[in-house]
Amino acid sequence: MSFRFEVLETDPTGARCGRLRTPHGVVETPVFLPVGTAATVKGLRQEALEELGASLLLANTYHLYLRPGYERIRGLGGLHRFMSWRGAILTDSGGYQVFSLADLRKVTDKGVRFRSHLDGSEHLLTPEKAVEIQLALGSDISMALDECIETPAPRAAAESSVKRTTEWARRSQNHFQECARRNGEPAQAQFGIVQGATFADLRRVSTRQLLDIGFPGYAIGGLAVGEPHAMTCEMTGEVTALLPQDHPRYLMGVGRPEQLADYAALGVDLMDCVLPTRAARHACLYTSEGRLLIKNARYADDQRPVDEHCSCSVCARYSRAYLRHLFAAGELLAAVLATHHNVHFYLDLMRQIRETISFGKLASFSSEMHMRYAEGPA
Amino acid sequence: MSFRFEVLETDPTGARCGRLRTPHGVVETPVFLPVGTAATVKGLRQEALEELGASLLLANTYHLYLRPGYERIRGLGGLHRFMSWRGAILTDSGGYQVFSLADLRKVTDKGVRFRSHLDGSEHLLTPEKAVEIQLALGSDISMALDECIETPAPRAAAESSVKRTTEWARRSQNHFQECARRNGEPAQAQFGIVQGATFADLRRVSTRQLLDIGFPGYAIGGLAVGEPHAMTCEMTGEVTALLPQDHPRYLMGVGRPEQLADYAALGVDLMDCVLPTRAARHACLYTSEGRLLIKNARYADDQRPVDEHCSCSVCARYSRAYLRHLFAAGELLAAVLATHHNVHFYLDLMRQIRETISFGKLASFSSEMHMRYAEGPA
Repeated sequence: MSFRFEVLETDPTGARCGRLRTPHGVVETPVFLPVGTAATVKGLRQEALEELGASLLLANTYHLYLRPGYERIRGLGGLHRFMSWRGAILTDSGGYQVFSLADLRKVTDKGVRFRSHLDGSEHLLTPEKAVEIQLALGSDISMALDECIETPAPRAAAESSVKRTTEWARRSQNHFQECARRNGEPAQAQFGIVQGATFADLRRVSTRQLLDIGFPGYAIGGLAVGEPHAMTCEMTGEVTALLPQDHPRYLMGVGRPEQLADYAALGVDLMDCVLPTRAARHACLYTSEGRLLIKNARYADDQRPVDEHCSCSVCARYSRAYLRHLFAAGELLAAVLATHHNVHFYLDLMRQIRETISFGKLASFSSEMHMRYAEGPA
Repeated sequence: MSFRFEVLETDPTGARCGRLRTPHGVVETPVFLPVGTAATVKGLRQEALEELGASLLLANTYHLYLRPGYERIRGLGGLHRFMSWRGAILTDSGGYQVFSLADLRKVTDKGVRFRSHLDGSEHLLTPEKAVEIQLALGSDISMALDECIETPAPRAAAESSVKRTTEWARRSQNHFQECARRNGEPAQAQFGIVQGATFADLRRVSTRQLLDIGFPGYAIGGLAVGEPHAMTCEMTGEVTALLPQDHPRYLMGVGRPEQLADYAALGVDLMDCVLPTRAARHACLYTSEGRLLIKNARYADDQRPVDEHCSCSVCARYSRAYLRHLFAAGELLAAVLATHHNVHFYLDLMRQIRETISFGKLASFSSEMHMRYAEGPA
């Protein structure tokens, strides 16, 4: 099996630089995963993702299950071939999207019955089904189905979600192994997801139960869904403190630029977020000096690149004045260029974080990032 | 002055291969101009246009005058610098867009008074103003303001439009020369536009009157606006028969793939059309075997590229199944990839036309193209 993780260097904060070997290449961690919901990072050609040095993408099981369908993608040779992406892919379990997007969701021990947000068709997502879908997609890393709940959650709901998530994790692993026995070892690693809302003891319970089952990597779910950043950090710390050093940790759905170093400091290795791509489409650009809302009239005659210290191909060639014009005129190229720049910013920020960890200086880097980006919209 | 045109080879049909030297590079003719209405070919980075071998773009004076404004573009160093395009640019006069897009249009001998389709603001476009705007944009080739009329036009309206267009062409040239005396010779060539609707004798009158004034190149306007293709060809032929061999001819707003060789056969050197880019955004792709409506369910599992005989970077990497999925999911990347392919198709078709002219075989090539593309939607 071609999945392997090793920690190479550590920082006094607890942050680590690591190397994750996947069937589709080596991923340097901590890593940020650009979000390719429907097998595309919105607005970017795969050539651009290669130019940007993306090594691991996130694709959404829920979206791909509904459209174009997982049997179809299997028939087309899997997700890598379907979207022509040579790097690694991580798929989520669909649990979070069913929770946040689908209609008429009904959760039982068996699984989640829901209606598609696209056409109202009815579906049942079980832990076993989530395994099968992700095996069909052929992602390098798959997630066990978890139960996501509303936040803030009452304690009883969080307790029940931890219990169900553990039970589903066990069934997910069983089915994953069963499929491996039946069809041969897949080129995929399955991660379990820790739940427990904002209750430290429940987070610890959930972590210990998943450790009992034993996965090659652990994800932390149900965070960054509206709670304060300090709470996200506290819960993350509760979990990572219990996790073994030699397994990768994936904090799902984070984060704002100034938060990434904090999560790395808590020992997180993988992070993903729609923020850089979504913000780009809304004309919010990240720069070494903070956020730049490019639609602002002050940029109409500004010949400078978006960020004078940025090495991306957009900053090398196009001016703020041109980008502002593209947004003002509602041109397709606005999103294309802005997304390219913002993904570069996030991936470059992670390169800086890895470098800073290797120098053992992550704590001060983190403070500096908060000063630079804490104000303003996401 | 760095503008020069020479005919290199001719075909029995009357088609010619030529070379147009501009301040921003050499353009091999017959050439197709991708349309960059608002200083962007919708969905394509300038890097992609370079990859595709585009040598000459069209930008719209009307759009850029209204947004971001010609004084702004002048201040930013001109259109080439504004959009970061090193190749050549041709700007139209704004006459056609005022005619087709603006509200409350009122034409007098002085010029056209109109309301912006963007914000309702009132503007007066005169021949002199059109010259000044295009000089500010700094395009390599500019157009004298012409009067466009509705089609089919009554003879009296066509007569009046020819008269006014000639008078405006004279004023345009006078003002262009006046500006040159005042500010130094511009790196721009000004073309006159022939009008005359679908009346052969009026087309000849218009042509002769423009020849009397004398321009470095001639455009044919007011065609491909709904009349049958045979009529477009007849009118074009009336004009090109009178034009000197050593001046470039630009047929504005054409055409469908199967028509391009016909226009080349009539001695046309420059053509532009929104068709390849607009069709791409509507999921209509051009291939060596005809049109392909990529949203069709039959492509859902089709692993082949859009066109197996195409050498573009989209066909080298992405499948019909993936493109169909992107269109079905309403993804930005759908328009990006489809536009890239269609612009490649048009530019490659022009390469074939130039090659065929050099072999003296354009007539049979033209028949073959009609068989391949005449059916179906544009």
